[in-house]
Amino acid sequence: MNRRMICYLTGRVLIVEGVLMVLSVIVGLIYKETMTWVFAPAIATAVIFGVLLSFKKPKNTDIYAREGMFVVAASWILMSLIGALPFWFTGQLPTFWDCIFEIVSGFTTTGASILSNPEYLPKCVIFWRSFSHWIGGMGVLVFVLAIIPMSDNRSLHLMRAEVPGPVVGKLVPRMRSTAKILYGTYTAMTAVLVIMLIAGGMPVFDSFCTAFGTAGTGGFSVHSAGIGLYSSAYIEIVLSVFMLLFGINFNLYYFILIGKAKQVFKNEEARVYIFVVIVATLLIGANVMTMYANFGESLRYSFFQVASILTTTGFATADFAGQWPQFSQHILLLLMIMGACAGSTGGGIKISRVIVLIKSFFHDIVSAIHPRGVSVIRMDKKPLEKGMISAVKSYLSIYVIIICVSVLLLSIDGFDLVTNLSAELACFNNIGPGIGSVGPMSNYSAYSGFSKILLALNMLLGRLEIFPILVLFTPQMWKKRV
Amino acid sequence: MNRRMICYLTGRVLIVEGVLMVLSVIVGLIYKETMTWVFAPAIATAVIFGVLLSFKKPKNTDIYAREGMFVVAASWILMSLIGALPFWFTGQLPTFWDCIFEIVSGFTTTGASILSNPEYLPKCVIFWRSFSHWIGGMGVLVFVLAIIPMSDNRSLHLMRAEVPGPVVGKLVPRMRSTAKILYGTYTAMTAVLVIMLIAGGMPVFDSFCTAFGTAGTGGFSVHSAGIGLYSSAYIEIVLSVFMLLFGINFNLYYFILIGKAKQVFKNEEARVYIFVVIVATLLIGANVMTMYANFGESLRYSFFQVASILTTTGFATADFAGQWPQFSQHILLLLMIMGACAGSTGGGIKISRVIVLIKSFFHDIVSAIHPRGVSVIRMDKKPLEKGMISAVKSYLSIYVIIICVSVLLLSIDGFDLVTNLSAELACFNNIGPGIGSVGPMSNYSAYSGFSKILLALNMLLGRLEIFPILVLFTPQMWKKRV
Repeated sequence: MNRRMICYLTGRVLIVEGVLMVLSVIVGLIYKETMTWVFAPAIATAVIFGVLLSFKKPKNTDIYAREGMFVVAASWILMSLIGALPFWFTGQLPTFWDCIFEIVSGFTTTGASILSNPEYLPKCVIFWRSFSHWIGGMGVLVFVLAIIPMSDNRSLHLMRAEVPGPVVGKLVPRMRSTAKILYGTYTAMTAVLVIMLIAGGMPVFDSFCTAFGTAGTGGFSVHSAGIGLYSSAYIEIVLSVFMLLFGINFNLYYFILIGKAKQVFKNEEARVYIFVVIVATLLIGANVMTMYANFGESLRYSFFQVASILTTTGFATADFAGQWPQFSQHILLLLMIMGACAGSTGGGIKISRVIVLIKSFFHDIVSAIHPRGVSVIRMDKKPLEKGMISAVKSYLSIYVIIICVSVLLLSIDGFDLVTNLSAELACFNNIGPGIGSVGPMSNYSAYSGFSKILLALNMLLGRLEIFPILVLFTPQMWKKRV
Repeated sequence: MNRRMICYLTGRVLIVEGVLMVLSVIVGLIYKETMTWVFAPAIATAVIFGVLLSFKKPKNTDIYAREGMFVVAASWILMSLIGALPFWFTGQLPTFWDCIFEIVSGFTTTGASILSNPEYLPKCVIFWRSFSHWIGGMGVLVFVLAIIPMSDNRSLHLMRAEVPGPVVGKLVPRMRSTAKILYGTYTAMTAVLVIMLIAGGMPVFDSFCTAFGTAGTGGFSVHSAGIGLYSSAYIEIVLSVFMLLFGINFNLYYFILIGKAKQVFKNEEARVYIFVVIVATLLIGANVMTMYANFGESLRYSFFQVASILTTTGFATADFAGQWPQFSQHILLLLMIMGACAGSTGGGIKISRVIVLIKSFFHDIVSAIHPRGVSVIRMDKKPLEKGMISAVKSYLSIYVIIICVSVLLLSIDGFDLVTNLSAELACFNNIGPGIGSVGPMSNYSAYSGFSKILLALNMLLGRLEIFPILVLFTPQMWKKRV
């Protein structure tokens, strides 16, 4: 293990976090909030720790897969501990566990909250809460990659550990340029959304925060009333479309930029994604029709909820958990598990993994009939590697095991199965609201401190796709020699 | 495809079914029931169809894996259609779908019922209902194997398709002798149980029916009050112990018979099985302690429920779904999914598959740290084949996909998630009672005809471990040339 390099990279991440917090300070100064001071100790901690860790640039900059995972997991945990400080200093949250839950939920773009009234917090802290979605969405290590010069074979391991999905490819030969392209597209799209929201009459502050929540597919809202507050068809449709756009693999935007738009239509994951959105919207629209004035309106609500849940954003304009019929709730639950596209800011198992699982399901049946037959599973017209298929199945197995164990541990708090299972799925898949007592009109404050930390850990497991966090907690990794 | 051979074997199964129904007729004659006639048309149908199908003994008796699965799936479905007739002719069940549901639930040893008062049925039909558990527990093809002389490499495919678990081995070189040993042990153990129940004061008729339900790990009871009716500590403990005994791989009994009892303690699956029983009993016992007079009594209830759910029998002495705390319910739900040992009469994913999944979970973490390291997963001190590990993961993937799709389809009926999910898990894993509206004090009658057929199909998928049923419905298998 290259400890020096691990410290160096983790240190850089903390410095970046400190610098990014300055934006919240600016917001605080604009709104002349006395509470702006809460960022001072947090920024100081981030910068001091960051500088101490990355003071000495390592000579040997070699890192391998395990170091990549270690750095990503360690960075995200330290970043969360420091990022929780501003919440803590406001004195509005009951315990430090709540602060941890809230910021991890932010960084992992989960959007699950323990706050029933976020508007009681100062604007600068609300800004930080929403901004954490934006940072976590594309990933802070990807950001560091874009600004630190590093040799390419090293940075690929970092990127693999932080970017969601079964395969992470380079767009351009140089990794640093890839990271820059990704962050450039991300920033530009967010900027367009902010402008469109302001144009739709949303207050400027709310537009920024909502755009961060949408871009990161996080889902924190500025008001306790959530997105329903604005109740304008324009804003709902803009948000629905942008949630879906941020749920697509960002590599596809690069193809559009370089004039290879055809590639996008050839992409199987994107095609299935669009298909799922259309089918789910129509099914739910028809199912809730009687609840709204006409089919158009029920489609509007259905489209928003499908986009919000499939991309794992978690904004709600309707009390789907309390009011909608069971069939619609069940569809939404399946979308929660499925999630968005690989390489997007969305969570869940990812559409591409679901495609692999379903294809290999049919493949297994054919193999059962012809045990000696040779057939391959294809995706995007290319045969899939066996290692990749087996990795996807392993991912699902580990996913199921973690969910079973976590739900059992959550049940100690005494809530019912729907609440525990949907809380677990909503946190692990980085969605936010669940069903039952953690539905969209409710929050997670009733869980115990232990459960909150468990759910926060699940959010990290989900966002970083399990392995980095598990690797960090493997005793082997902490031994002197590995 | 060897069609002649498929017809021949299926025909033999139907003849065997017809012959086995004669036992119910005898029961009817003993109790002088006028309703005994309901078996006449059923026996006639079974024998006529059976003779027509197996009239000509095929010259070519070669069968391969796909034919094995086809025969098993086709036999089980035809057997259920004919086995449902006696229920239908009683006129006590509202629709033919209900009759199908009831008998499939019997053969697959699920024990889920649509009857709230089984005692309204004539005794001969109740006997048939419970006896179907016994037939389905060890498998009707295994029975046919024990009586029809067949060459060995052919019968192995049949046995593989019908006996649950990831690996099916021969006990002795000749398959026919293996089948005879299995059925001999099964019959002897059932006989011992019947005697012990009668000795405990249970009426003779009830003792037979309860023993069939226990041996097949099915769970149909004779009275609406279920096992709770007898409320004797002796009967409860006898049943708990026997349920657990029938949940163990039957191969182990053979080792005991031939004096190699040490083999049993070396068997990892059996060790984990016992460990799970102890831990779950203690955890639930402690959790429900305040509800009972003393810790001893709470342990008794806990032990019975753990044995009943883990072996997927589904007898209930306590209203665990309505009264027990959430933590206990969650543990029971996990046990439902886990299930009993491979090669037993129990259902679920099977302990051995769970062991493989958990071991490969840790293996995957180590592989993530050392991508080029070579490590193997061992079970019973022997390295596991890669193909076997991959097959277990495929099984879990298909399991998850089927459960997701089925729960979505069930939700059309408008029940809540807990009811649908637990109904699906209870049927697929061949347990019987679920949680919510299908809890142990309730039944499945409220579901629509479509849902009942879907659940019955799920029971078959669970009992035959997915592939045979899927293979039967693959259009490729029905083409002239395969």
